[in-house]
Amino acid sequence: MTLTANTTVVPSPAKGLVCRNCGATFGLIAEHACAECFGPLEVDYDYDLLKAVTREQIEAGPQNIWRYAPLLPVGQDPASRVSLNPGMTPLVRADRLAEELGLTGGLWVKDDSANPTHSFKDRVVSLAATAAKGLGYQKIACASTGNLANSVAAHAARAGLPSFVFIPSDLEPGKVVQSAVYGQTLVAVDGSYDDVNRLTSEIAETDEFEDTAFVNQNVRPYYAEGSKTMGYEIAEQLGWRIPAQVVIPMASGSLLTKVDKAWRELTAAGIVADTPWTVFGAQSAGCDPIATAFDNGWDVVKPVKPFGIAKSLNIGNPADGPYALDAIRRTGGAVGRVGDDEIVQGILDLARTTGVFAETAGGVTVAVLRQLIADGRLDPTQETVVLNTGEGLKTLDPLEPVVGFTHRVEPSLKSVRAAGLIG
Amino acid sequence: MTLTANTTVVPSPAKGLVCRNCGATFGLIAEHACAECFGPLEVDYDYDLLKAVTREQIEAGPQNIWRYAPLLPVGQDPASRVSLNPGMTPLVRADRLAEELGLTGGLWVKDDSANPTHSFKDRVVSLAATAAKGLGYQKIACASTGNLANSVAAHAARAGLPSFVFIPSDLEPGKVVQSAVYGQTLVAVDGSYDDVNRLTSEIAETDEFEDTAFVNQNVRPYYAEGSKTMGYEIAEQLGWRIPAQVVIPMASGSLLTKVDKAWRELTAAGIVADTPWTVFGAQSAGCDPIATAFDNGWDVVKPVKPFGIAKSLNIGNPADGPYALDAIRRTGGAVGRVGDDEIVQGILDLARTTGVFAETAGGVTVAVLRQLIADGRLDPTQETVVLNTGEGLKTLDPLEPVVGFTHRVEPSLKSVRAAGLIG
Repeated sequence: MTLTANTTVVPSPAKGLVCRNCGATFGLIAEHACAECFGPLEVDYDYDLLKAVTREQIEAGPQNIWRYAPLLPVGQDPASRVSLNPGMTPLVRADRLAEELGLTGGLWVKDDSANPTHSFKDRVVSLAATAAKGLGYQKIACASTGNLANSVAAHAARAGLPSFVFIPSDLEPGKVVQSAVYGQTLVAVDGSYDDVNRLTSEIAETDEFEDTAFVNQNVRPYYAEGSKTMGYEIAEQLGWRIPAQVVIPMASGSLLTKVDKAWRELTAAGIVADTPWTVFGAQSAGCDPIATAFDNGWDVVKPVKPFGIAKSLNIGNPADGPYALDAIRRTGGAVGRVGDDEIVQGILDLARTTGVFAETAGGVTVAVLRQLIADGRLDPTQETVVLNTGEGLKTLDPLEPVVGFTHRVEPSLKSVRAAGLIG
Repeated sequence: MTLTANTTVVPSPAKGLVCRNCGATFGLIAEHACAECFGPLEVDYDYDLLKAVTREQIEAGPQNIWRYAPLLPVGQDPASRVSLNPGMTPLVRADRLAEELGLTGGLWVKDDSANPTHSFKDRVVSLAATAAKGLGYQKIACASTGNLANSVAAHAARAGLPSFVFIPSDLEPGKVVQSAVYGQTLVAVDGSYDDVNRLTSEIAETDEFEDTAFVNQNVRPYYAEGSKTMGYEIAEQLGWRIPAQVVIPMASGSLLTKVDKAWRELTAAGIVADTPWTVFGAQSAGCDPIATAFDNGWDVVKPVKPFGIAKSLNIGNPADGPYALDAIRRTGGAVGRVGDDEIVQGILDLARTTGVFAETAGGVTVAVLRQLIADGRLDPTQETVVLNTGEGLKTLDPLEPVVGFTHRVEPSLKSVRAAGLIG
């Protein structure tokens, strides 16, 4: 953060919430389901305000997600933000990986492990916590597969807000310790993420939690908009253009829909040229409900019971699955699914060729990229961006059996010689 | 990285190497010890070129360490860089920690866990690897306590260079896996860091390693200059001024000397006002040779055998100890040392109040800040910056016994009620 950056306060372009199912409109309230049809609500904008936004205005902003405040529902006034100031993470040119995969159109990795708590969740939590403060909530909370837990607890610590984090009790040790270290309330639930999510939606209705914003539940419409910033950044970092293809991991499916939405907004506003793009989704074989719906031509997603190492993607009942399918089909994309061995190989391939150490979700994305090229579903002659949404240090367990020292020696040249490192 | 950033190539201001002991001068060669007196060599600059550098020139550069290329020995031409493009890490305002500590002058945390491999070592490796390439080396290598290992292996992976990383065999699992995942040669040495360092200086002399740059040995003068960028960034992020006080962890002592050097350069060049600053050093009680020398008024540092949890600081024979002592004494500073329990408490205090999760070295720094205030050696009415040089996810072991779930429940409201979370 450069303190001298431009901090002019623009008006929020958000004008209300709208039901994605029936189109009913509401004010800027703390609800995520439509009172008419129970469909999901999302933020509705004044498109004249969005269209007035310019590249120069964005470029004059800080080096974090808040440079896009003129395109976001909350946070225009810096004093209103509850945020670790994530974003502007590296877009890494991956020439060596491209060469291995036979991808000639240019390959980039958008590396969100560089965010403050090392996942893309800092983007959505910054939006949710800022909205929560604006709506008068006193506390924040979440159900999480780990990365969201880390981010909510860290945001609460920075702001001095109480928080309540609910996670499955079998999460990776790194994610548990990182959630716990911020000194917030951390509740282990003996069950799957879907069980945790169901439980928190009941807890949110109790009197004790009336003053608590559940970031991915009652303030979900604001939360979800944070993911648009990944799309904005990719376009800006490419020199204000949209890549031909993008591969995005899917848990709830929300991130994929919001990257697509970001690019529709940028083209509508004339900030980038209106070039075509294709959106590909990535899932693990242990949790593939959106992949299955895609393969079968279904509009709805049939819930599954997840398993496997890509725990951050293990949402068996993905709230935004149908909308992710819409974006993938509208742009001519596809969905790939990969098993645990391929996921580990994806992590190793990415690390070995780019120096980026991804968590299992990143391994899913890279392995799916390889699969989509092999299947002929992704065009290797077109420029492609893959998203790494989290940090390898959080998911060491599946790597410990497959990587380690290549040599072990005593501290003597004799021992180094015996190990074959010198003649 | 914004691809549209200014990439004008300026000349290197480096004119040679100079012995810090006897003042003998050399060309820009691959040596770290003086041929006359065996004293340490450092980069010597054309100070007229340094003085011509302006704020505007720096601000037009990319959002990483290379914006300071006009002040660095190598890397002026973007095509010459071997780099993960680290730097411009957050300077976090720590009001809640300041309040707990009774520090009224303003407190900031410079958080280098945001670098690509999550420690400040990416800064020095980017300089060393770029210098190595320019000097014609084909491979890079290092002796490391872990963070340097991660960074060398990741830089090598990105660039497609072979690398050889030597680490003590008892390092933290996170650092071992992160070093191994990049697919480079990783050698475990059964001994202390000082043993590893001695071994690699012997290996560097063998025929097999003639074409290998040992980043912290034969190209150490270039490597060490990378640490100046932390000093430059702090000044720039404060709006181009130098803080009154800074607390810096010490292993070899090099980082501390280079932050001080950076500020001397900025004031000499007129880029910032020449206001006084005081430099404080932080060590663990398990490895306190510089603290002991400071307490006893010694000019030389007596080696120790390190122990304790702050492994990244466990250098018992610190090469830059005497120069660190010079900077601390010249500016009226002091050195603190803290035990393992205080280090863990420092990590928890920082996380709870700022949302920054530091590795043990960061815990050392925060605990020493507390101690220096309590002892009356650091002025709580003056603006202070503390450096977090690494990532908490790399050193989970000492936290696992002290943090965890606050509650554990079944996925039912009844169980949540029994746990006391609702009435």
